Amino acid sequence: MLSSHQTKIRVRYRDVDRMGVVYHANYLDYFEWARSDWIRAIWKSYRDLEDSGIFMVVTEASLKFIRPAQFDEELVVTANLTDWGSSRIVFNYIITRQASEVPICTGSTTLCFVNTAGRPMRMPEHLKALIVSE
Amino acid sequence: MLSSHQTKIRVRYRDVDRMGVVYHANYLDYFEWARSDWIRAIWKSYRDLEDSGIFMVVTEASLKFIRPAQFDEELVVTANLTDWGSSRIVFNYIITRQASEVPICTGSTTLCFVNTAGRPMRMPEHLKALIVSE
Amino acid sequence: MLSSHQTKIRVRYRDVDRMGVVYHANYLDYFEWARSDWIRAIWKSYRDLEDSGIFMVVTEASLKFIRPAQFDEELVVTANLTDWGSSRIVFNYIITRQASEVPICTGSTTLCFVNTAGRPMRMPEHLKALIVSE
Amino acid sequence: MLSSHQTKIRVRYRDVDRMGVVYHANYLDYFEWARSDWIRAIWKSYRDLEDSGIFMVVTEASLKFIRPAQFDEELVVTANLTDWGSSRIVFNYIITRQASEVPICTGSTTLCFVNTAGRPMRMPEHLKALIVSE
Repeated sequence: MLSSHQTKIRVRYRDVDRMGVVYHANYLDYFEWARSDWIRAIWKSYRDLEDSGIFMVVTEASLKFIRPAQFDEELVVTANLTDWGSSRIVFNYIITRQASEVPICTGSTTLCFVNTAGRPMRMPEHLKALIVSE
Repeated sequence: MLSSHQTKIRVRYRDVDRMGVVYHANYLDYFEWARSDWIRAIWKSYRDLEDSGIFMVVTEASLKFIRPAQFDEELVVTANLTDWGSSRIVFNYIITRQASEVPICTGSTTLCFVNTAGRPMRMPEHLKALIVSE
Repeated sequence: MLSSHQTKIRVRYRDVDRMGVVYHANYLDYFEWARSDWIRAIWKSYRDLEDSGIFMVVTEASLKFIRPAQFDEELVVTANLTDWGSSRIVFNYIITRQASEVPICTGSTTLCFVNTAGRPMRMPEHLKALIVSE
Repeated sequence: MLSSHQTKIRVRYRDVDRMGVVYHANYLDYFEWARSDWIRAIWKSYRDLEDSGIFMVVTEASLKFIRPAQFDEELVVTANLTDWGSSRIVFNYIITRQASEVPICTGSTTLCFVNTAGRPMRMPEHLKALIVSE
């Protein structure tokens, strides 16, 4: 089974726009927070990964903005690893309020593993083993 | 013919991440800058539109991150209005370096017209006339 | 005794710049997170305060950037309410790593209470009572 | 005479908060834009400076937020180099609306020259000569 992770996020004042709701581009950040927390939880900090010369670059993203979220709300970002290939992984995301299954934002990102030269590389074996074993 | 607009953007220090390239979520901002400049150029400031009770809410977005852009580069965002319905419009975007047609990022956003209560409303007649006449 | 509050912050990928350290302007955001958490802890959400027509506007800020903070580090922001007048409050801040007293960033902000028209107003009595009683 | 530079900035949707005005932390970004434009105008891109191993790190900042700025307004940031030492320079800033001298935000930042190891270094001779000759 592939991997899943939940991250709680408090909507910050900065994140909210003139309409009083989360500015749409911030949801890509929230997705990234969930990925960072996911890799730290199952393996190690993404910072250590980058420091060892392995980068996960977002190559595609799509989002649906379904309901507005307000300043100071606590959101839950669920990241589900839904697909992977030799040098890429795909996550789907659902953002809801706590104790609610009503979606606020859903989306998907494809990430490619690249080396310090920016060239695609194979997913680290250790990470692949972790994903497959889960 | 539908509408098209170009906006020049200087990549700011804030926009660049630990890899030295534009952080992916910022491209959604760049798309928004092009839309703001487009509506000001063909009609009036989006601020005036909001102040008159008409909001354009992003309901869907998709992006492809093709090549990295560096700090201090000058980018060109081309926004093309590619489709519209009674209460929504769709833009496609291509971001390139100046004097280059090689894409850095491409994408699409769907926007819905909503009133102050957040309810969908018809596109303003004046804007529709402008779009159709172009 | 005046009020004090601690907030834990995980440095996010977005917060880090080309040098690999927290971009300096983000510390003003971190200060704001600590204030939001402080007022929610002692009274109610700052969102409810704004929704009742009371705004806390930053009128002055000063910061010293002492040591760099890295991506994915956990920081502690300590906000100390150090002074208040009829329509303003002053906070000092110290940001450290967890389990460390070595400062990363220190600073101060002055905030003014204003009404929906943007005019200065007296600090709400209830908040004053909370501050004095602490 | 020391150096001065003006940069025009359009307030973007992202920059504006729930009150409809520029979120205070963004003025530190606007100051940085003016510095980037200043060094590119008198010498070369700050990006090239960093790529040659010379970094200008903000060590202190102070700001006064005097009047609110609205979404879509065009602001002018005037950066004045007001002091310099062997390894640091100080800028003062005034932000106004175009064709107005009424200040919206004023401030000051101190920057230290550091090398790739993060150690303070002397200001590059070429930059010093440019500053003194102006």
